[in-house]
Amino acid sequence: MSEDACAELRRGAVEVLLEKDLSAKLARGRPLRVKAGFDPTAPDLHLGHTVLINKLRQFQELGHHVMFLIGDFTGMIGDPTGKNVTRRPLTRAEVDANARTYQEQIFRILDAQRTEIVFNSAWMDRMSAAGLIGLAARQTVARMLERDDFHRRYTGGQPIAIHEFLYPLVQGYDSVAMRADVELGGTDQKFNLLMGRQLQEEYGQEPQVVITMPLLEGLDGVQKMSKSLGNYIGITEPPGEMFGKVMSVSDTLMWRYYELLSFRSLADIDGLKQAVGEGANPRDAKIELALELVARFHGGAAGRQAKAEFLRRFRDGGLPDQIEEITVAARDGRAQIAYVLKEAGLVPSTSEAVRQLAQNAVRVDGERVCDRSASLAVGRTYLLQVGRRRVARVTIA
Amino acid sequence: MSEDACAELRRGAVEVLLEKDLSAKLARGRPLRVKAGFDPTAPDLHLGHTVLINKLRQFQELGHHVMFLIGDFTGMIGDPTGKNVTRRPLTRAEVDANARTYQEQIFRILDAQRTEIVFNSAWMDRMSAAGLIGLAARQTVARMLERDDFHRRYTGGQPIAIHEFLYPLVQGYDSVAMRADVELGGTDQKFNLLMGRQLQEEYGQEPQVVITMPLLEGLDGVQKMSKSLGNYIGITEPPGEMFGKVMSVSDTLMWRYYELLSFRSLADIDGLKQAVGEGANPRDAKIELALELVARFHGGAAGRQAKAEFLRRFRDGGLPDQIEEITVAARDGRAQIAYVLKEAGLVPSTSEAVRQLAQNAVRVDGERVCDRSASLAVGRTYLLQVGRRRVARVTIA
Repeated sequence: MSEDACAELRRGAVEVLLEKDLSAKLARGRPLRVKAGFDPTAPDLHLGHTVLINKLRQFQELGHHVMFLIGDFTGMIGDPTGKNVTRRPLTRAEVDANARTYQEQIFRILDAQRTEIVFNSAWMDRMSAAGLIGLAARQTVARMLERDDFHRRYTGGQPIAIHEFLYPLVQGYDSVAMRADVELGGTDQKFNLLMGRQLQEEYGQEPQVVITMPLLEGLDGVQKMSKSLGNYIGITEPPGEMFGKVMSVSDTLMWRYYELLSFRSLADIDGLKQAVGEGANPRDAKIELALELVARFHGGAAGRQAKAEFLRRFRDGGLPDQIEEITVAARDGRAQIAYVLKEAGLVPSTSEAVRQLAQNAVRVDGERVCDRSASLAVGRTYLLQVGRRRVARVTIA
Repeated sequence: MSEDACAELRRGAVEVLLEKDLSAKLARGRPLRVKAGFDPTAPDLHLGHTVLINKLRQFQELGHHVMFLIGDFTGMIGDPTGKNVTRRPLTRAEVDANARTYQEQIFRILDAQRTEIVFNSAWMDRMSAAGLIGLAARQTVARMLERDDFHRRYTGGQPIAIHEFLYPLVQGYDSVAMRADVELGGTDQKFNLLMGRQLQEEYGQEPQVVITMPLLEGLDGVQKMSKSLGNYIGITEPPGEMFGKVMSVSDTLMWRYYELLSFRSLADIDGLKQAVGEGANPRDAKIELALELVARFHGGAAGRQAKAEFLRRFRDGGLPDQIEEITVAARDGRAQIAYVLKEAGLVPSTSEAVRQLAQNAVRVDGERVCDRSASLAVGRTYLLQVGRRRVARVTIA
C-alpha cells in the first residue's frame, strides 16, 4: 500500500491503537473487516456523525470490508427497570425503520453495494444468562470503574446500575462475533473500543486495531457539534441552509472541517492552505468546501445552485473580505435580533436596530430580516449585516 | 400460633428481618414457603451445616413448606474464564450425584416426604442474556461494593470479576422464582439474603423474611466449625467418634450446642441449666447431648451403645468431675504427643512422657495411646490422661 494511502487512513484520527498492528494487518494485503457501531434510536445525522462514516469510506475505497453495526440488542431492552419512559424498549419494526433511515443517510457517503449492515441482536438474542456471566468474568470491577464517566459518577455518589457494566462487555463482544480487524469510534468511546481488543484476545482472536476520531466542533468552533446545542449542520438540511452554515464558520474551523469532512486529498488541502497563506481569499476555499458538502448530500446541481444563490446574495449584500468575530451573551436564554445588533456594536441602540429592521436593511446569513420579534439561536454563529458596511460574525453564547 | 412456637422459630437466630413481617406472615395461618440455599459441590456435612437444616426442620414441624435449594446453575458454569482448574464446571450427572448425597444426609434431620429439593438451573438455564441484564439493572455498583468482602477486596486492590456481582443477583432472583416467604442463611450470607427481599419487591412480590443463623463454633469453641480447621464433627462420622468429640467440648460450648443443635425445647434446656447451676454434674448434660446427636445420625441403638462404651472407658480411666482446660501451641505446625503432655504440665519432661507412653498409661479421648510418634491435630481439643489422676482438656493451637 502506498504511503499516501496510509497517511489518509490516519488522517484526522486522534489515536491509532496500535499503529504497528494496523501496519501488520495492512501488510498482509487481504481486506480488513472494519466495524463502527451506531445507536439504534431514530437517526438524524449531522456532519459530526459523518467524521466516522467518512473514515469507513476511506477504508472501503481501499478495498476493505465495511460493517455498519446497529446496536439494536440493547435498544430493544430499553430501560430494564421500566422506570424511564423516555428509554422504552424499541420494537423490531422500529429498529428496522430506523435502519432504513440510516441507510438512506449513510449511502450518500458509503457504497451501498459494499457495505454490510449488521445488527448485534443476531448473536446477542441467542446468548444465555450463563453466556453473559462467562463474558462478565473477563473483566474486573476496578477496571470498569476506571472509565471516566463511571469513575466520576462513582466518586460523586451518583448511582451506576450494574447492567451499565455489562453494556461495554456486549459492545466488546460484538467485535468477537464480527471478527473485526479494525473498530472506529469517537474519542469518548475509547474505553469500549479497547474492551473489544481485550475480549478478542480472551477469545483467541487477533485484537482489533482501535482508531478514535475526534468529536467534530460545531459551528461555534468550541463545543462539539450536537443537535441539542443548535450548532450543527444536519445532512438532510436543504442545500441553501447547508451552504450558508458552512460559510458562517471561522477560517480556522474551515481547515478543521477540510481535514475531517472533505474527500479532497491531504495534498490538495495543503495546496489550498498555501494559496491562502500567499494572499488568496479564504472565502473562496470556504465556498469550495460548502460546494463539496452540499453536492455530497444533494447532488452536484444542487451544490452549484446553492453556490450561485449564495454569491448573488452576498454580492448584493456587499460582504467584505475581513469580518470581525463577536460573541453576544443571550439575555434570559433569549437573543432577540435588535438586542443582538446593539450588543454586537452594529447599531448604537435598540431603537436604531428597530429602525434598521423596519427599513429592511438587516441581513442574517445573507437573508433580509425585518421582523423585530425574531430571535437568534443560542450556540449558533450568524453573519449579521446592517446596510452595506456594518458586518460581523456573531456567536450567541 | 403459640408463643412457645414463635420463640422456637427465633431460637438461636442472629437476626430476623423484619420481625414484624414474620409475625404478619405467620398470623395469616397458611404454610410459608421456606428457602435455604446450598452449594452444589460434593457435600460432606458437619454439625455446623445442620444449624440451618435444624431451623428448616422447625418450620417443617410447624407445617410450613421447606425448599432445599441446590445452586447448581452457577456450579455448572464453574470458573467462566477456564483459568481455575479447581473450579471446573460440574456436569449434570455430578450435580445429580451430589444431590443424592445431600438427601442421604439431610433426611436424617428433615422429613423427606415434606421437603422439596429445588435446583436453580430450572429457571436460570432458561434465562437469556437480556433477562440477566434486566436483573442487573435493579442494583447499583455502589450498593454491591458495600458488601463486606467486595469492599475489602476493592479497597485492598484485589480484583473482583464483574460476574461476581451477578451471583448475588441470581441468588436473590431465586427467591423471586421460588416465591419464598422466608429465607434462612448464615450471617455471612446476610447481604445476599437481603438482595432476595429487594428483588422480590422489584418484581411485585411481598419481600421474604430473612433469618440469619450464627456460624457454629468448632470443638475449640473459638473458630467456626470447618473441615479445613479440623475442629468439626461430621454427620457421617462413626458413633463412637461423634460421641467422644461432643464430650470433649467445654461446658460453655455445650450450652451453645444445646441451643443450636438439640431438638429439646428451650424449656427443657433451661431445666438442665438450672440443675447444673444447683450442683448437678455438667458431664451428665453433655452425655445427654452426645446421645441425642449420635441417635439422630445413627439411630437410638447406636447412641446407647456409644454412651455405654464411653462410660466404660472413662470409668476405667477414672475421669474426675472438674477438668482443667489448657491450650498448647503446636511447634513447627506439629504437636507430637510427648511434647503436648509436657507442655500441658501432665508430665515434667518429654522423657517422662515417653516412659508413660511405653507403660501404656496415656489416654487420648479415653483411648490408650502408646505410639510415641503419634501427633495431635491443630485446632482440635482432646481429653488427655496420664495414669488415673493427671487429666486435662487440651486444645492444640
